Amino acid sequence: MTTINENFSKLRAGYLFPEIGRRRRAFAAANPGAKIISMGIGDVTQPLAPAVVAAMERAVAEMGRAETFKGYDDSGVGYEFLREAIRENDYAARGVEVETDEIFVSDGAKSDTGNMQEIFGLDNVVAVTDPVYPVYVDTNVMAGRTGEGTASGQYEGIVYMPCTAANGFVPALPEGKVDLIYLCYPNNPTGAVATKEQLGKWVEYARENKAIILFDAAYEAYISDPEIPHSIYEIEGAKEAAIEFRSFSKTAGFTGVRCAFSVVPKGLKAYTKAGEAVSVRDVWARRHCTKFNGVSYITQVGAAAVYSEEGKRQVRGTIELYMRNARLICETLAGLGYEVYGGVNAPYI
Amino acid sequence: MTTINENFSKLRAGYLFPEIGRRRRAFAAANPGAKIISMGIGDVTQPLAPAVVAAMERAVAEMGRAETFKGYDDSGVGYEFLREAIRENDYAARGVEVETDEIFVSDGAKSDTGNMQEIFGLDNVVAVTDPVYPVYVDTNVMAGRTGEGTASGQYEGIVYMPCTAANGFVPALPEGKVDLIYLCYPNNPTGAVATKEQLGKWVEYARENKAIILFDAAYEAYISDPEIPHSIYEIEGAKEAAIEFRSFSKTAGFTGVRCAFSVVPKGLKAYTKAGEAVSVRDVWARRHCTKFNGVSYITQVGAAAVYSEEGKRQVRGTIELYMRNARLICETLAGLGYEVYGGVNAPYI
Repeated sequence: MTTINENFSKLRAGYLFPEIGRRRRAFAAANPGAKIISMGIGDVTQPLAPAVVAAMERAVAEMGRAETFKGYDDSGVGYEFLREAIRENDYAARGVEVETDEIFVSDGAKSDTGNMQEIFGLDNVVAVTDPVYPVYVDTNVMAGRTGEGTASGQYEGIVYMPCTAANGFVPALPEGKVDLIYLCYPNNPTGAVATKEQLGKWVEYARENKAIILFDAAYEAYISDPEIPHSIYEIEGAKEAAIEFRSFSKTAGFTGVRCAFSVVPKGLKAYTKAGEAVSVRDVWARRHCTKFNGVSYITQVGAAAVYSEEGKRQVRGTIELYMRNARLICETLAGLGYEVYGGVNAPYI
Repeated sequence: MTTINENFSKLRAGYLFPEIGRRRRAFAAANPGAKIISMGIGDVTQPLAPAVVAAMERAVAEMGRAETFKGYDDSGVGYEFLREAIRENDYAARGVEVETDEIFVSDGAKSDTGNMQEIFGLDNVVAVTDPVYPVYVDTNVMAGRTGEGTASGQYEGIVYMPCTAANGFVPALPEGKVDLIYLCYPNNPTGAVATKEQLGKWVEYARENKAIILFDAAYEAYISDPEIPHSIYEIEGAKEAAIEFRSFSKTAGFTGVRCAFSVVPKGLKAYTKAGEAVSVRDVWARRHCTKFNGVSYITQVGAAAVYSEEGKRQVRGTIELYMRNARLICETLAGLGYEVYGGVNAPYI
């Protein structure tokens, strides 16, 4: 008799975004005249940058000729040309040293933030901010790292760290010990950012407690304040304390194209129950190459074009458009008497 | 202290294919004059079909215009146009009824065959053919469904079912009870196929024992014998007994493009420890939508073009080329006195 993974039955509801999509489609069908501005899913609206389109057109043509056709990306972790562009532009240009073999190209930050927990033990205590991107929580529920769901919509065994206007939406360090800490800055959904000093405290906590920070920086391209770090690795010691997730979805409108990457530094360690240190990077590499077969060559060529001079200028222009919209929403809501946060270093309000 | 998932330490070696790639690159670097025919990884060599290239070029252009741009595929399971083409061409055309909401589009059969085990309990007994595609085994090791690796390269707790010339590379039913049964026909790597009668025995076994067959049909397009089933659902009762995996990789040269799908029928059940039946489809849908964000719109448009009249003709031509190569290899090796199997209904020999 095949048994089911009963952890799935703990999930209190269907996954959030298909449900939002279902309700939107039902509303649109019932109200064919209604003009809907869908704010339920954090999707992009603007087309791909011309530099990306041109690069992908070239790549599609290459795939149609035997001499230039590409089969499996047998490295399993992304073409060197893309990982090198990431290393140089996202890290070296900000004074952060990351090696290309610490970069793992994937089909999305959702996949990466959902899959990463799998390489860690089930006994780790998970800490999340509250509110939080549901993938961090749901994937830990599925894996069996929690108890039952409670009436308030939380799960037993997870440490929820309240993010409120009073703490600037950056949580205080937890009182007890936690092991896996999900942080997302610029934050989805609050629009808050974390300063170097605030992240520094978390890195210090992680190093002291041998905890690991899972740092989701999918919205870093929206930071306008030059004092705010784009990468957690701008904090000293973070390469022994954190994994970073990045995405082309919001940076370059890739929500329908699917490309992202994780950085798993070689210095990062987790431990066996016997206390032996294990390279987190090596275990993730084994997982990534076994359960995933790389990202489309066409997509990777498109992603690399985001780093061309033209591509950078074009995606910057689109981000400015989104941020003008954010400012308009902020100002309008504030003018109507609402208390408004975010919208300055993040598209979320 | 963050603990590691210690099941990973049971893995006896790195994942097979990156290691083959590494050795090939090292050999090529050391022997720059050598002409290498790489037979270690089952990759394709022929370019994408012109109909696919034309469709993807149109899709890339659509993504570059605001009016036709597509963000998230918020169904999470693939565009209706692709799932409908699959339903009609891969199933209805062979007399098999599959509904579009039983079809889950993904980035690869490797991902699907690797991830599917996650929705089942850890107490299930896993049965695999021997030899076997390493993903089935390695992902169950990582999940903790096995004991340690043995000196022979197998893992304690897994039931290995020998496939030899004597049994035509289709294993006998196991003597003890098993729960999750991985079958791959046409087979990678033996090139064998299973008849309706042979698969019928497995479906009967699964139904009697409430076991589930994980049927990998990634090579079905290579079947030339009209008596051989392309889908396990051609066997009566299989919709209550099996999940099927399909891929565009070998059908249409998508190894570097990444598109596949799984069929999880609504009638398929797994059980709680208390004996309550649970819909496997519903649990997989929750997993798929939570940990995966869909396949590139461009890729899905390309995959749908495989089902156009032109696309069908073109991919058929490419498959015939591969099969002429297979025949040449078979005949040459047989002429040299080797015992040769496969190469008739599968590209493998």
